[in-house]
Amino acid sequence: MTVAIIPVPGVPMVRPGDDLAAQLGDAIEAARVGVKPHDVIVVCQKVVSKAEGAVVDLKDVEPSAFAKQLAARSTMEKDARAYEVVLQETSRIVRMDRGHVIVETRHGWVCANAGVDESNGLGPGVLTLLPRDADASAEGLRSRLAERFGVELAVIVTDTFGRPWREGLVEVAIGCAGMDPLLDLRGRGDLHGKELHHTVVALADELAAAAGLVMEKDSGVALAIVRGVRYAPGTEGAAARLARKPEFDLFR
Amino acid sequence: MTVAIIPVPGVPMVRPGDDLAAQLGDAIEAARVGVKPHDVIVVCQKVVSKAEGAVVDLKDVEPSAFAKQLAARSTMEKDARAYEVVLQETSRIVRMDRGHVIVETRHGWVCANAGVDESNGLGPGVLTLLPRDADASAEGLRSRLAERFGVELAVIVTDTFGRPWREGLVEVAIGCAGMDPLLDLRGRGDLHGKELHHTVVALADELAAAAGLVMEKDSGVALAIVRGVRYAPGTEGAAARLARKPEFDLFR
Repeated sequence: MTVAIIPVPGVPMVRPGDDLAAQLGDAIEAARVGVKPHDVIVVCQKVVSKAEGAVVDLKDVEPSAFAKQLAARSTMEKDARAYEVVLQETSRIVRMDRGHVIVETRHGWVCANAGVDESNGLGPGVLTLLPRDADASAEGLRSRLAERFGVELAVIVTDTFGRPWREGLVEVAIGCAGMDPLLDLRGRGDLHGKELHHTVVALADELAAAAGLVMEKDSGVALAIVRGVRYAPGTEGAAARLARKPEFDLFR
Repeated sequence: MTVAIIPVPGVPMVRPGDDLAAQLGDAIEAARVGVKPHDVIVVCQKVVSKAEGAVVDLKDVEPSAFAKQLAARSTMEKDARAYEVVLQETSRIVRMDRGHVIVETRHGWVCANAGVDESNGLGPGVLTLLPRDADASAEGLRSRLAERFGVELAVIVTDTFGRPWREGLVEVAIGCAGMDPLLDLRGRGDLHGKELHHTVVALADELAAAAGLVMEKDSGVALAIVRGVRYAPGTEGAAARLARKPEFDLFR
């Protein structure tokens, strides 16, 4: 079955306190793309963070001594207060070199700068943080949009992450509701009856990357619908299951 | 613009020496999905490796002392000769623990087991290797398919890789022809005229992951067409550019 990745333009400039579910629903209606059963609604982290007020104004930040040291050693002319914000979102530093800071966030994600980013739209010096609980954000959007459109659907919140050993960024899932983010094929036979081993697909990450194809980073498309993908029902704290547990992590 | 990810069933059981370009073209014709200008033809590594004869029969392998040690320490009941095949494809071992072997391959990819896999279809004890030069494989398929269908197109060869810190596998690009695998947005303004920094998208990997949505690992779909994605023209050795150079690698 062909999968369609449908960009949904028209999400307005989101500000803290906005009703994002209503804004996304309005954009979907205006785009006249409809919502069909089992659609996956993909929304980028930045608008979720803005709506939830997960933003920090650098003028309210006092850098620690460590943040000042990082800024002094950076080759990137980055504000010590920005490093301070990153450190406040960090539970563990994974790599630190030439101003690059790869950390494990409070949420358990390993990424650059703890997901802290320039806000693009809330004024200079305002940074976005990752949503406090992006699975809960996804669930909130899912229940509102499912009610509005009268169909079962899933919601994925994405962010743009780098990867070790590979150039370029890709969209990944940091929040998920209404679907199992992992597709477990272990034990299923392939075409020839041979048992497949150890194959668990990161379905939510493949969906996020697919949505990334239409959410070009400079096009202002913060919302996409992926239509035609089968998935298993979701549980609470779905995307959190994509974060590998330390005891299974060879790269800790 | 909506992107379509079109599964193309009907690729036969590929065997060493087969004319894969003809087989893929026949499957596309039989599926009546056509080929449109700038389609991206995505094909999984395993059929490429089989057609090119990048396979090894374990009965022809003599395990080294090191391979035997690995097998003895493994918790996975893996044949010492299989470890020997992995080591022969390896230029550097990145992590080795409890039978898991994450390596840098001769081609420069960091992945589990050097991309060596059970062949599913060539008989028990036959393993597939990664194509010797998957960019060249992609270019060979691209030129043949472009000629057959009379349109410009791109070809991506994918494999299924794990990732540090995240559960589940995703499809990534290991070969690419006809398109730039990286989408460089640096310096482009966003909606609000603010310059975007450091944003290079791994477009070929997002395309591979998107194709993964229809190339389910147990469905026997080895071929997909992604339609509606804009990309820049390609160069030789395209996917090789996705392998991060050691001097920029924080995880070496």
